[in-house]
Parts: sequence; C-alpha cells; structure tokens
Amino acid sequence: MKIAIVGSGSVGTYYGAKLAHGGSDVHFLMRGDLSDVRRDGILVRGRGENFQVVKINCYNSTQEIGPCDLVIVALKATSNADLVDLVPPLLKERTMLLTLQNGLGNEEFLAEHFGADRVLGALCFIAVDRHSKSEVERYAYGHVVLGEFNRVSQPRTREVAAEFSRAKVHCSVTDNLALERWRKLIWNIPFNGLSIVAGRIDTAAIVADKNLRELTIALMNEVITAANKCGHALPNDGWQEHIKRSETMSGYKPSTLQDWEAGKPLEIEAIWGEPVRRAAASGGKMPLTETIYALLNKMDQGRGSP
Amino acid sequence: MKIAIVGSGSVGTYYGAKLAHGGSDVHFLMRGDLSDVRRDGILVRGRGENFQVVKINCYNSTQEIGPCDLVIVALKATSNADLVDLVPPLLKERTMLLTLQNGLGNEEFLAEHFGADRVLGALCFIAVDRHSKSEVERYAYGHVVLGEFNRVSQPRTREVAAEFSRAKVHCSVTDNLALERWRKLIWNIPFNGLSIVAGRIDTAAIVADKNLRELTIALMNEVITAANKCGHALPNDGWQEHIKRSETMSGYKPSTLQDWEAGKPLEIEAIWGEPVRRAAASGGKMPLTETIYALLNKMDQGRGSP
Repeated sequence: MKIAIVGSGSVGTYYGAKLAHGGSDVHFLMRGDLSDVRRDGILVRGRGENFQVVKINCYNSTQEIGPCDLVIVALKATSNADLVDLVPPLLKERTMLLTLQNGLGNEEFLAEHFGADRVLGALCFIAVDRHSKSEVERYAYGHVVLGEFNRVSQPRTREVAAEFSRAKVHCSVTDNLALERWRKLIWNIPFNGLSIVAGRIDTAAIVADKNLRELTIALMNEVITAANKCGHALPNDGWQEHIKRSETMSGYKPSTLQDWEAGKPLEIEAIWGEPVRRAAASGGKMPLTETIYALLNKMDQGRGSP
Repeated sequence: MKIAIVGSGSVGTYYGAKLAHGGSDVHFLMRGDLSDVRRDGILVRGRGENFQVVKINCYNSTQEIGPCDLVIVALKATSNADLVDLVPPLLKERTMLLTLQNGLGNEEFLAEHFGADRVLGALCFIAVDRHSKSEVERYAYGHVVLGEFNRVSQPRTREVAAEFSRAKVHCSVTDNLALERWRKLIWNIPFNGLSIVAGRIDTAAIVADKNLRELTIALMNEVITAANKCGHALPNDGWQEHIKRSETMSGYKPSTLQDWEAGKPLEIEAIWGEPVRRAAASGGKMPLTETIYALLNKMDQGRGSP
C-alpha cells in the first residue's frame, strides 16, 4: 500500500514515521527545507518507544509523490483550502483519503472536492508534540479509531487498520465515525478551549481549579446533549471517563495551546464553530461552547506574533 | 452634613471632590502619601467640567476625621474587611453609611458589622478614571441612584440626594435598591467580565465583535432571568437600552479592566460570585455568568504584577 502523508505537524509526522518504521511504503509531503529530514531521518521518542527512521521519502510537492493507494491528511483544518491543489496528483481510481484532523467538517470537505466514496476518517487519541521537522515526542496514548465517511466499515477499512496494527499503532474500527467524532469533542471542546481562554494553561491546571473543573463538566454535558440532538447517541455519563482520564494523565498542552504558542492558526471552526452550527441546525443549543467560541475568536484576532 | 469619604479611587475621589466643590463639608481618608493632595488639591476634568478643589481635608486615619453624619464607602469590595477597623471612629448615633460599591453583598456587609438601620446604597453610572491621587477624569455620565437597604426611601435619603444635587451630581432616589443593583449588573456582568476574559479589550471592541456582542446579549438575558427568579422584576427587553448605550458611547475600559491594568484586586465576588450564589439559592442558574466567573478567577490567579 503506497501511502502519502499530507501535513507534517506532530500527528502526521508521528503516524507517518510509525508506518514507515513498520515497513509501509510512506511518502511525506513536507513543504520548505527538507535537508534536515533527508540527513537525519525522523526520531520518535516517547513512552516505551525510541527509534529513528533513517531513510525518509520526503518531497516538496505531491506531483513528485504521484498516485497513491492511501492519502493521510494531517494538515491543520485551517489549511484545508490548500488540499484542492495538493491532493489531485495523489489520486488514482480507488485512492482512499483518510483525514486524521480534529473536529467536524473535514470529511465533508474532502467528500465535496474529491468524492464521498474515497473518504475515511480517524480519531487520534494521542498527546504528541513536534520538536523539529525530524523529531516528535509522544507523551501519552496513541491509539486510533478508524471509520468510513457516512458508511459502515468496509473490507478496505480493515486493510488500513491492518497497516496501522502492523506498525504497532493500536487501531480499532468503528461503524459510526460521526458518533466517535462527537465523542472525542467531549474532551476537545472543554480542554482545548479552556487551555487558551483561561490563560494559556495545561490540562492539569484546568482540572486542579475547582471552578474550571465544574465548567469542564458542564461543557462536556453540553456536548453530549448536542450530540444526542444531532442523532448521535452518547451516554449521559459519558463525561466521567474523560474527566478521569485527564485527572490521571500528567499536565498536557492540548493541540490548540500548542498552536497558540507556536503562532499557528487555531482550529476554531472545526472544534467549536461547526459543532455549534450542527447543534443549531438540529434545534439544539450550546451556549457554553458558543461562549468559548466567541472568546477564542476574539483572542485569536488579538494575538501578535509568537 | 459632615461627610467622610472612605476609599479614594476614581469613584470616591470624583464624588468627594464634586461634593466639596458644591460646598459640602467633606473629609477624605487617603492612606499613604498626602503631600500632593495637600499641595495641589484635586483636579476634576471631564465632559463639560473642569475645576480644582484647592483645599482638601485629607487624613491618614479615620480617628483624625472623627464622627460624621454620612460615611461614603468607595473602597474596592475586595477591601471590605478593612472597614471593620476604619468605620467605627466615624460613627455617632445616627451616622449613615452609604456604599457606592459595585455588585451585590456590600450593603449586607455593612449591615452585619454596623447595623442595618444605618445602611444606604447607591449605583454610580459613571465612566471615570483616576490619573493620580489629585486628578480624576470623567469620560461619560455621572448620575447616581440612591436608596435605602431593604427599606423604601426615607426623609434622610432625600437629604443625602439633596447634598448630591447641590453639588450638580444628577441624583435620583429609588424605593427598591436591590432591583436597581440587579439592573446595573445587566451591564457590569457582561462588559466588566468580557473586558478581561476576551483579552483586555474595551467596550467598543466588545460590541464591534459579532460573537461577543451576541454573548453580551445572552449574558444580559441571563442576568434578567436570574433577577426575576430572585424576585426583582426586570423587563425581559431590559438588555436593549444597555446595548444601545454601549454602542453609542465611545470605547471605555470598565472598572475591572482598569483594576487589572493597575494590578489591583478584581471585584469578582461582588459582580459575578454573589449574583450566581443568589440565583442558585432561588433555584436559578447562570451558566454563562459562571463561565465568566471561573475564567476570571483563574486568570486573576495567573496574572503577575502589573
């Protein structure tokens, strides 16, 4: 299976390196200077793993990569417009497009531009940071939940999952990707949001503060109610596992805080805007999420360079 | 009427200087260095007024002031504990205590420590800033709404109002001070709060941002609903005048933002904490206000020196 990785932030670099290390035929699109990666390969550090992929296939353009069997999209959702030009050289008749991006709306974007039949999505449960183009560090977790866009899983879904499994990435397959997207938002909407609007703090600082912990739970319940309103049946006590997970994991900077600190665009529409709009379209309301959304937008406009 | 001013921030200095200028017998408690004020008096600048009160009675202790007819309390609510020692030297049998402080709970504090019969309260609708101990600038408004604590207005209420009116401060008397406190919160809860949590911005920046303007209206409606739940009948469209006022007034930094920038304590409990608790005690909920409250508390802990 020839695989392209489009988007070489922390997530794309980590999973791409894992797949390459596991023996997959991986080709990275890396815009900008490639000399470090060509010289050093990619170093993956983290809990219980420490390896270097010495030879990396990396390119400045997708024309150089050419048609693939699987294209893994790991760009920031804020750069989706770039995909319109980046993806076509990677396509042949049955090429699969798999987005690892956060939030809602990314499968729909790919479907609209390249056809719904090609589209898969995955939730990445991982705490990872990129120290440079050639070094990523995984702090916790790493598993992937994989599914088809608006379809139950197919034989090809299992083939992709097998590719991840061979690379020692724990990967499960879901028949209901949309439900899993909402389930992940139970965590992302409060923690990614509060990490910024409560003053650039990590997950440990959020759960250690009594008021913020209560607000986190209120946001989680709001997400669950909205998901149910949109037809995705999440259990009413679904917030408990998420809170417990964050209480036991050591302090971590959610991706949005990492983006803020790096002066990068924030995925505001995918994580907060689109869920609010979908809830509204189903007659639901997310006033707390809207509050975070309004504050994030304003603070994002107001920030200077990193 | 011998008047003491306890608390010489912008509000205490402005109204004290107005009263002195109007001919009242005013005595300022000003802790710290008094030499500037003793030398220069107090300069009041602002829309349509520009005057200097040359001779200021100012003191380092309330013992030096001695018993008064009226004690005007204009400390930050966060310093209320200081009043336990500051006020007694100012009291005689019928001394009135008038708090100009923001938010809820200040009349109750005075009543608990010095007797409910003495207590009056006023809402100050004013945009004012203190440039130094001896200079304040009024940007807009200035009128005062005066009332008795848990009583309808009394003959003495009118006497105090007459003192303000003689000093050319527009002053009206209310028979329902608690209702007016909630009415003022319709403005303070969103604008004072968002001025901090949306990234230290003024009122013009808040209403100019579509999302923040909507959030402001949602917060205003929440305050109105909570007030009604607590038995204070505010009209459901009560938010409209407040929004209009802020849209026509030029950008202004609410007192909480001024406090933040000066490195002073924020009146978080009086403006957000106490309303949330009172609503809850009446079976009401203020989730958006709680959100602002949680964020303010955390950001307040996180801020360094100015």
